[in-house]
Amino acid sequence: MTFNPETDLSIERQMAAAPDTVWRCWTDPDLFKQWFVPKPVEVSAVEHDFRAGGISRVVMTLPGGKVMDTTGCFLEVETAAKLVWTDALGPGYRPNGSGFMTVTIEFLPKDGGTLYRATVLHADAKGKAQHEGMGFHDGWGTTLRQLDDLSAAL
Amino acid sequence: MTFNPETDLSIERQMAAAPDTVWRCWTDPDLFKQWFVPKPVEVSAVEHDFRAGGISRVVMTLPGGKVMDTTGCFLEVETAAKLVWTDALGPGYRPNGSGFMTVTIEFLPKDGGTLYRATVLHADAKGKAQHEGMGFHDGWGTTLRQLDDLSAAL
Repeated sequence: MTFNPETDLSIERQMAAAPDTVWRCWTDPDLFKQWFVPKPVEVSAVEHDFRAGGISRVVMTLPGGKVMDTTGCFLEVETAAKLVWTDALGPGYRPNGSGFMTVTIEFLPKDGGTLYRATVLHADAKGKAQHEGMGFHDGWGTTLRQLDDLSAAL
Repeated sequence: MTFNPETDLSIERQMAAAPDTVWRCWTDPDLFKQWFVPKPVEVSAVEHDFRAGGISRVVMTLPGGKVMDTTGCFLEVETAAKLVWTDALGPGYRPNGSGFMTVTIEFLPKDGGTLYRATVLHADAKGKAQHEGMGFHDGWGTTLRQLDDLSAAL
């Protein structure tokens, strides 16, 4: 994974909980639904198969009822340490026909807690600009605060 | 990897050489150039980094000079056993913005030689039809015969 500031985005947050607890908030679907999207958007369904080639599907329901169903595929899974997935491929690595981003999440042990780092690669600068226009920093920033709060309370 | 006959293609050939020799024809660039495309097309450059996330780039030169430069990314690499790559992602898993296929090659030990199996997943039935229209069976069939001949002579 090579970060390119012209095409890519990243965000990180120091969290109070240790990596294995933050990891639990990712891998337990009931916990995952509590933090992954900024309220009042809701995660109405989640289907995660945590292995390379496994499905990564999240269904979001917006206020008013609009549904966003995104299916991708995990590329790398290291328990309590790293996740990589993309929406360019579906389960079993089948091409989706389009692809917006590849996301790497690192769960780095730091100061008794977790330095949580998300790196998002896009195909080009246009993809980065589009993601920024969708409110990347506010949206992901909010979800990381929700994750920090939830994992600290477990 | 789940094969779907409506969207996917596969081809296999029993080869005389053992898997480690067929693997050598894949991983040694000088050998790879000798079999990977049907003559008179030529492989004018190859760049392979055999690890998950590593580059898979092949440049072909057609009679008359037209150049086809395809860059993808390996997803799984098992020495002398299995290769998976896709053109939906570039090196480091960066989305290419489009994606036509994901290819799995299996090097299966059989009868002292290798049962070589290629499975090609497409996004949909249109992708499969397009690939068949490009001459998948003749083209890949020819390259597999070239690979069989080359590996048997080593």
